[in-house]
Amino acid sequence: MTITITAFERSPDGGKGLARDTRVRWALEEVGQPYEVRLVSFAEMKKPAHLALHPFGQIPTYEEGPLSLFETGSIILHLADQHESLLPKEKNARARAITWMFAALNTVEPPILELTTARIFESDRPWSAERLPLVKDRVRAPLHKLSAHLGADEWLDDRFSAGDLLMVSVLLRLRISGILDEYENLAAYVARGEARPAYRRAFAAQYAINAPSA
Amino acid sequence: MTITITAFERSPDGGKGLARDTRVRWALEEVGQPYEVRLVSFAEMKKPAHLALHPFGQIPTYEEGPLSLFETGSIILHLADQHESLLPKEKNARARAITWMFAALNTVEPPILELTTARIFESDRPWSAERLPLVKDRVRAPLHKLSAHLGADEWLDDRFSAGDLLMVSVLLRLRISGILDEYENLAAYVARGEARPAYRRAFAAQYAINAPSA
Repeated sequence: MTITITAFERSPDGGKGLARDTRVRWALEEVGQPYEVRLVSFAEMKKPAHLALHPFGQIPTYEEGPLSLFETGSIILHLADQHESLLPKEKNARARAITWMFAALNTVEPPILELTTARIFESDRPWSAERLPLVKDRVRAPLHKLSAHLGADEWLDDRFSAGDLLMVSVLLRLRISGILDEYENLAAYVARGEARPAYRRAFAAQYAINAPSA
Repeated sequence: MTITITAFERSPDGGKGLARDTRVRWALEEVGQPYEVRLVSFAEMKKPAHLALHPFGQIPTYEEGPLSLFETGSIILHLADQHESLLPKEKNARARAITWMFAALNTVEPPILELTTARIFESDRPWSAERLPLVKDRVRAPLHKLSAHLGADEWLDDRFSAGDLLMVSVLLRLRISGILDEYENLAAYVARGEARPAYRRAFAAQYAINAPSA
């Protein structure tokens, strides 16, 4: 069955791979699943045809025959449930990997989203310079703990899983702030994720569309 | 197998049911699963014994024999996977319900967390009054879309699921701000969730510990 995802016609990040379609592309590449991409403009994302696929008017969406999904976490869990390379079959190991998926999206990412908002949408406000250090400290709080937990390990649990895929993707959003490099083991962890052939193919595919020269 | 969760020794919300153990208690009540609760103090949450269960030093945690989990979303998905009352067995309906779980935690909740942070940790800052309306508008953006999607329906998909359990729980955090009541159908949706016997049992159980007079 053909799988079709949506992505920005032109990603605001100019090809840095930070738009959420890269996370889904990466998962599809890890499991060796071919897919098609439908590019949507910001105007199209607000129209009923797109809202029927994604009630919040975002990308990516995922279509596979009669099934249509949104939310990157859900799309990746759907793929991971069918492919042991992203999610162990053993019941308890599976539950732990899913725990890391939620930890990436609901514990580590929210303060990172707040930092992005502060930098992009409040940079011209009078409080911006004084407030930014507070926001950065809120980003660091879970990273201290994550770094302590990871220690010298390669991945968050015994082997690479969808939990690592999402955690690396979330942490990548921090690189521009310099905060990621404050944690040597987390920076190395992210670099291990980026070095995976599947990530490189996913990155290249989105870069071909979004690069400044494209 | 005995299930043990952790909860705050004393919740900062004084028994309003907004701490995340209420979400897990609700899921356990929906599936009729007895459970034990171990209360932890803020000091205990920072100690190695608790960090071994929850690397980010939060509550709730979940222990079931050799399995230990953290992240409310993951705990609830683990329970839902074993009980059709929280997650349909049909493959596509199951994927859609899981999509709503992620939508609650990764699309609707992050701006609500930002609002909570602004109200609690930045209320004494000089920018607080001028900034709060911006934060509230970011909370409203996904709610407009969620309200349009829900329309006059009872639940987010055909029947109540773990997706509704999490969405109602996330929206409950908004009541104090008055924003929830701006959306008549969302306020009614939340009230439908609160009226469920399982929610009422979960609420009562945490209230018995956290009520101001307790």
